[in-house]
Amino acid sequence: MNKFRPLSARRPARAVTIVLAALGMIVFAPAAQAAVDAEAGFVLNSFSFLVWGALVMWMCAGFTMLESGTVRTKNASVICLKNIGLYSIAGLTYYLLGYTLMYTDVSGWIGSFDFLYGTTADEIALVGGKTEVAASVIKNKYSTMSDWFFQMVFVATTASIVSGALAERVKLWSFFLFTAILTAIIYPVIGSWTWGGGWLGEMGFKDFAGSTIVHSTGGWAALAGIIIVGARTGKFRDDGSVKSTPPSNVPAVTLGVFILWLGWFGFNGGSQLALSGAVDAIAISNILANTNLAAAAGVMAAITISRPVTGRVDLLATLNGAIGGLVAITAGPDITEHYWAIIIGGVGGIIVVLGMRLLEIMKLDDVVGAVPAHLFAGIWGTLAVCIAGGGDFVTQLTGVVAIGAFVFVSSLAVWWAIDKTLSARVTLSVEELGQDTAELGIEAYPEFVVMPDADEIRDFQESARSVGNS
Amino acid sequence: MNKFRPLSARRPARAVTIVLAALGMIVFAPAAQAAVDAEAGFVLNSFSFLVWGALVMWMCAGFTMLESGTVRTKNASVICLKNIGLYSIAGLTYYLLGYTLMYTDVSGWIGSFDFLYGTTADEIALVGGKTEVAASVIKNKYSTMSDWFFQMVFVATTASIVSGALAERVKLWSFFLFTAILTAIIYPVIGSWTWGGGWLGEMGFKDFAGSTIVHSTGGWAALAGIIIVGARTGKFRDDGSVKSTPPSNVPAVTLGVFILWLGWFGFNGGSQLALSGAVDAIAISNILANTNLAAAAGVMAAITISRPVTGRVDLLATLNGAIGGLVAITAGPDITEHYWAIIIGGVGGIIVVLGMRLLEIMKLDDVVGAVPAHLFAGIWGTLAVCIAGGGDFVTQLTGVVAIGAFVFVSSLAVWWAIDKTLSARVTLSVEELGQDTAELGIEAYPEFVVMPDADEIRDFQESARSVGNS
Amino acid sequence: MNKFRPLSARRPARAVTIVLAALGMIVFAPAAQAAVDAEAGFVLNSFSFLVWGALVMWMCAGFTMLESGTVRTKNASVICLKNIGLYSIAGLTYYLLGYTLMYTDVSGWIGSFDFLYGTTADEIALVGGKTEVAASVIKNKYSTMSDWFFQMVFVATTASIVSGALAERVKLWSFFLFTAILTAIIYPVIGSWTWGGGWLGEMGFKDFAGSTIVHSTGGWAALAGIIIVGARTGKFRDDGSVKSTPPSNVPAVTLGVFILWLGWFGFNGGSQLALSGAVDAIAISNILANTNLAAAAGVMAAITISRPVTGRVDLLATLNGAIGGLVAITAGPDITEHYWAIIIGGVGGIIVVLGMRLLEIMKLDDVVGAVPAHLFAGIWGTLAVCIAGGGDFVTQLTGVVAIGAFVFVSSLAVWWAIDKTLSARVTLSVEELGQDTAELGIEAYPEFVVMPDADEIRDFQESARSVGNS
Repeated sequence: MNKFRPLSARRPARAVTIVLAALGMIVFAPAAQAAVDAEAGFVLNSFSFLVWGALVMWMCAGFTMLESGTVRTKNASVICLKNIGLYSIAGLTYYLLGYTLMYTDVSGWIGSFDFLYGTTADEIALVGGKTEVAASVIKNKYSTMSDWFFQMVFVATTASIVSGALAERVKLWSFFLFTAILTAIIYPVIGSWTWGGGWLGEMGFKDFAGSTIVHSTGGWAALAGIIIVGARTGKFRDDGSVKSTPPSNVPAVTLGVFILWLGWFGFNGGSQLALSGAVDAIAISNILANTNLAAAAGVMAAITISRPVTGRVDLLATLNGAIGGLVAITAGPDITEHYWAIIIGGVGGIIVVLGMRLLEIMKLDDVVGAVPAHLFAGIWGTLAVCIAGGGDFVTQLTGVVAIGAFVFVSSLAVWWAIDKTLSARVTLSVEELGQDTAELGIEAYPEFVVMPDADEIRDFQESARSVGNS
Repeated sequence: MNKFRPLSARRPARAVTIVLAALGMIVFAPAAQAAVDAEAGFVLNSFSFLVWGALVMWMCAGFTMLESGTVRTKNASVICLKNIGLYSIAGLTYYLLGYTLMYTDVSGWIGSFDFLYGTTADEIALVGGKTEVAASVIKNKYSTMSDWFFQMVFVATTASIVSGALAERVKLWSFFLFTAILTAIIYPVIGSWTWGGGWLGEMGFKDFAGSTIVHSTGGWAALAGIIIVGARTGKFRDDGSVKSTPPSNVPAVTLGVFILWLGWFGFNGGSQLALSGAVDAIAISNILANTNLAAAAGVMAAITISRPVTGRVDLLATLNGAIGGLVAITAGPDITEHYWAIIIGGVGGIIVVLGMRLLEIMKLDDVVGAVPAHLFAGIWGTLAVCIAGGGDFVTQLTGVVAIGAFVFVSSLAVWWAIDKTLSARVTLSVEELGQDTAELGIEAYPEFVVMPDADEIRDFQESARSVGNS
Repeated sequence: MNKFRPLSARRPARAVTIVLAALGMIVFAPAAQAAVDAEAGFVLNSFSFLVWGALVMWMCAGFTMLESGTVRTKNASVICLKNIGLYSIAGLTYYLLGYTLMYTDVSGWIGSFDFLYGTTADEIALVGGKTEVAASVIKNKYSTMSDWFFQMVFVATTASIVSGALAERVKLWSFFLFTAILTAIIYPVIGSWTWGGGWLGEMGFKDFAGSTIVHSTGGWAALAGIIIVGARTGKFRDDGSVKSTPPSNVPAVTLGVFILWLGWFGFNGGSQLALSGAVDAIAISNILANTNLAAAAGVMAAITISRPVTGRVDLLATLNGAIGGLVAITAGPDITEHYWAIIIGGVGGIIVVLGMRLLEIMKLDDVVGAVPAHLFAGIWGTLAVCIAGGGDFVTQLTGVVAIGAFVFVSSLAVWWAIDKTLSARVTLSVEELGQDTAELGIEAYPEFVVMPDADEIRDFQESARSVGNS
């Protein structure tokens, strides 16, 4: 891996360049950016979407591990099912409707209700051998479905955020119904405002890979659900104390965070949307470096602050600090002064630790800390673009508020309607028994002896004592 | 990630194209497909094999997690060892013999018994600095070992299918011996008939990434093993009831399915075998989109049908539904009308749920549902190419039957011979004790208190009762 | 996936080549190697760093799973925290100082104390639209931060090796402090001697991807720590027997090994440092094939030898055999005769099994077998370059000894200083209670009933007996 091997390779190609230039063909000069040849660019752009998109898909496994390791064992199977279900639903709805609503003929506030988005006629013709359409296809810069694939995994991420926050008490099919609406309509609408070229995009709102568009959206939808569905029974006690619900499987949570960290390279790196020239290569490299620095800073900031805030070195807070750092850098990961990534990510980590405490004080029961990590750190990251990424504060704030208002209100309405019809929440007896046994008829770890819930033991002891006293 | 950034980048390259065209060099026109320059194509084709191949290797970890989470804890270590062993064996045998038997000078029914396949002399010369052989190397379109690597991970997948079906009672070294024969001979022979250019390939048999060639082959080999090795003791009770053997670690199973889903993007996408032009980029994009849609449809179809078939929302059936959808789309993932992927994958998911029930009725003990997922859905997927991918029904059926007959009969013979010599199955006492303790002297989770098997408790209680009655 | 589809694609590009050649522009001839055009090469080189680098980052998750599954459950959370912490620290220190110390203006023995390495001014200008600097940027072959990213994940790997060896008794913050010094100074210094172009590099020391530079360095640092920190209490009993400490979660360990195996494709493949021509594509393909063959051979050699050495088929030894094979091939993975990879990897696997036994005899307590796998197999691999990769034995040995001496002595000094100030080791009561409860206030698996340590039971029984006897 010696970096100082002779660099003879470039010369002949440069010779061609020089000769072509001498022939009057100005190769790189007049463009806004240098670039490889058109078809190679088409290939590289599409491949970039697919490779990075596959990593983003992998984030769903990360959310699954994080969530199944955080919930109590009696709900670990259902959360697995919710996650593989939400990824499936998101993939189907975004094909059936979501993509066109977000990207096709966006009028400013909404795209088109075209269904079944797909490969263009020209692409089909080219694949079928009609080479005369090649130029027209290549002009589009990337293949239709490579872009669809990359956008689709983003929707799934949004939905993943909701499942963790509402774990252990939201009904399986109610959650799936909300997921369908979130991914088919709510997310695509705010996506059309921004990346789709709608009013916020025209106003200059900057959110490179979606601190607000993806993460805050998921966070707002989760917060609305938390309010409608309510806290887990016994989480907030009458005496004001908060029942401790530590992760049931810490290595699983840690694995989940590593998966998310890895997937985030795809999330932010792929959002450059191109790999067809030196400019893209430089940008994606900076993005991956900044993403890593921000996550690392989030970890170290969270671990440092967790002791004064929570009274101990808090593992879950530290792991969430990584996510806070990642969410925070997502709005502007392409900054070229990399120490800013450390600052933005570090603040993101601190926000998560404080936010988790704040939610407890407000008696809002977010099982995995999704709202602090995705919503609070997402808002911070979107505003932080003004510091290092050249964003305008009023515009950024307008985006944060407008998207927040729309997502929160519409989610609240949908959750309310679901609650009034299907009921959003399982019954108390299902909650106490655990959703795994009640809804699926299985246990997550059927052969392992697990301890009864500490509160249940206390209840039992108290009732036994009161019997003894009577 | 705003999609509407100015597209100035392409112009200069197009200018070159136009000038070259004006000079009489017709750049894209006469080819069957457009393409990047030869050496860039060579690099991209090879890189595509390697990146997608690495994802396919990752599928072995997916099978390992799926299987170790499905078996009872007393056999979870041995299944881990079987999986890392089978991947190692497949990698070695396919280098020693398998590849050449599949691809070198295929006569119609078999390739060559050349050993130690490897880098060509021209490639060695080029790497060593002899640039005069560059053109000859580049003409081959991709590097020798990039293709070998991609083909090798496919063999390993086939072997992975067998380990899960036969878990909890097949002997470690007997399984390894079967794996060596499967990967060195059985798979390469049917591979030579098809992808190697043999008689089925010449007949026009279509199996893009191996619904039959890889997945049904693994499924037939597993089915033969199930018949010879027999069911786990106590699985099918005398009263006709079936002992429930739920997964011992549901999050591990779920992680396994997510890994497989991710790996399948490499499995199907890499099977385009090239990334050297717009045609390939479009095809791979369609393939990844279809693969995802089929898996998602498999999940939703399986979860929907699992309640009427199994009496509950069945998590394991749903997770297997994803695999059924993936296997089904594998024979023709490059279709351009994407709703077909949903239909094909959805039917695949249904087939898996019904197939798992069918095997139980037939008293065939397939621990993870490998036969329904890989064999049944594989047959469906291969025939489904006639619907959306232009396959000929008779040809497809011929392939399914011929490959099935060869793999099933030869596997049956090998398993029979192994059983008569080494014995294919562990003794009853090993089975009851668990293979981990008996064969490896360890437990998978030695510090965790695990419950004795429910049937063992019943046996104990019954014997205690009979003692009390006497 | 039929390999025999018509190859029409290459022709037009070849036509261009021929015409350009006819016009007197000799395209490929005078270069030491053939290559794609300069900007495409820049893109591909950078992308290669990023994609393979992301896989190397994933190795940290592999170490985490391997280690958390190997330690006893009472220390599984702390080892997770150590791993995410070390990856964060390595990423920050290597940005703050490490990279420049390793690569900038290396004088022979050390680089520069420049802080905050980052994107060049030319790159910033190009991204900002100044296309006139494009040629100057592209001349650098890859983007600055793509290389930084790839080098950074290597440092993290070195630090990961230490955490496993010292698990279950090293103090959290002492470990973090050592990690900071290792990644900011110790590793960069020896990196500057070699890959940075210093004295060993000039002498011709060959270590392609770091059998010595990364893995032995980690192994020496771990060995120094083992000596200073001491063995776990009770591991080596007064009667000369060794307490068995089997993995607490075998599937987690197995998953960790699969992750490492996958990540190693990036580790070795990316170390080609380029993807800009056929030579690179061929080399990386050979590297991935050899890496896989060596790991597979390590597995099969270790499983075969484990029975005579350890008295049984030893799962942990077999899994470590994979790592031994991988470490061994890392110094020269680009050999073109692939059977050498099998031999080198197989010997690596055997060394690990024997080395684990040797450490026990020497009463050195290496929890995961990191020293045998990374140090012993690393030395073997570095010397094995003389067999198949053309290395000079004296030079290779000089590198092994010089790096070993520097890393071991400096690590010993740092560990000693840490021990005298902060104390390197937790107290006996913390060790008995477990670091999870004592240092983090949580358990890794709080709901699962775990068995008390066998030795603790024995101690309790003995004390009870002695009470009964008195």
